[in-house]
Amino acid sequence: MKQVQDYIRTIVDFPHEGIMFRDVTTLFADPRGFRMAIDQVLHPYAGIDIDKVAGLEARGFIIGGAIAHQLSVGFVPVRKKGKLPGRTISQEYKLEYGEAIVEIHEDAIKPGEKVLLVDDLLATGGTAEAGIKLIERLGGEVVSTAFIIDLPDLGGRRRLEALGKEVLALCSFEGG
Amino acid sequence: MKQVQDYIRTIVDFPHEGIMFRDVTTLFADPRGFRMAIDQVLHPYAGIDIDKVAGLEARGFIIGGAIAHQLSVGFVPVRKKGKLPGRTISQEYKLEYGEAIVEIHEDAIKPGEKVLLVDDLLATGGTAEAGIKLIERLGGEVVSTAFIIDLPDLGGRRRLEALGKEVLALCSFEGG
Repeated sequence: MKQVQDYIRTIVDFPHEGIMFRDVTTLFADPRGFRMAIDQVLHPYAGIDIDKVAGLEARGFIIGGAIAHQLSVGFVPVRKKGKLPGRTISQEYKLEYGEAIVEIHEDAIKPGEKVLLVDDLLATGGTAEAGIKLIERLGGEVVSTAFIIDLPDLGGRRRLEALGKEVLALCSFEGG
Repeated sequence: MKQVQDYIRTIVDFPHEGIMFRDVTTLFADPRGFRMAIDQVLHPYAGIDIDKVAGLEARGFIIGGAIAHQLSVGFVPVRKKGKLPGRTISQEYKLEYGEAIVEIHEDAIKPGEKVLLVDDLLATGGTAEAGIKLIERLGGEVVSTAFIIDLPDLGGRRRLEALGKEVLALCSFEGG
């Protein structure tokens, strides 16, 4: 039977030469694949207390919306700088070359709320770490992080686990 | 009882002076509001034959993911130029000043597939029309379009209805 990883397409040299891009759009476009992926992400959280799902822009919105709806909790977007219309707090993080900034609405998380952070792919973990910091600066507690794909060679899992965070991923690919 | 529109926040002068920005993030962040919004979008499609949900970047991904999962169908992103890793087709459309381009993977929709197009807000309908054209160029049939918010004064509903498309929206706001 086809598993989640079997629906994921690899695009060579995107967005830069030398990158093997793991493309979840072929997973999401398949009715059985998408359903299976969301249900497998949800499975470990049965009975776990979660108040909000936070999704990283933009593919994290696709799974985050489905997961929040299924859990009957609110969804909170973590967005690139300048996209959120209300009052925000910002967090800078390092890219391979240069820096980037993500933001969250300052009223999106209330102190003490338990948050599940989701994205399609865990690579270096830079964006996810910035998202965790934003949630924690608002007083939220990141109870777990969930991804469709883990690229263990890029160190994101180690980085998030070093922050004391649980990391769940449905599948992993060698290399970057 | 609080209705969908009561959860939507208005931000004055975002992203430009003179714009009353209708912000769905306060709706999505509320467990009851988000659940109600998704369930109300889904309600009219009970028993309707839908093969795929297409969502417009980026807020359309949040509701599109939830709706596709609930309908047990695939989700297809319509993205800004350069974001999709595979082979794409592009569609240009006019903005108030200048032009923009949206893209879809050329294998994302198969000929004859019935597609529900979703986004958070219908304003001029320019992006939605470009999304419809992309889906139809791939041989898909846009069976309906669904939005959380309609801004009727900006003409999007008339524009999509002139293309023969059904337009469903949960609420509307006067002005732009």
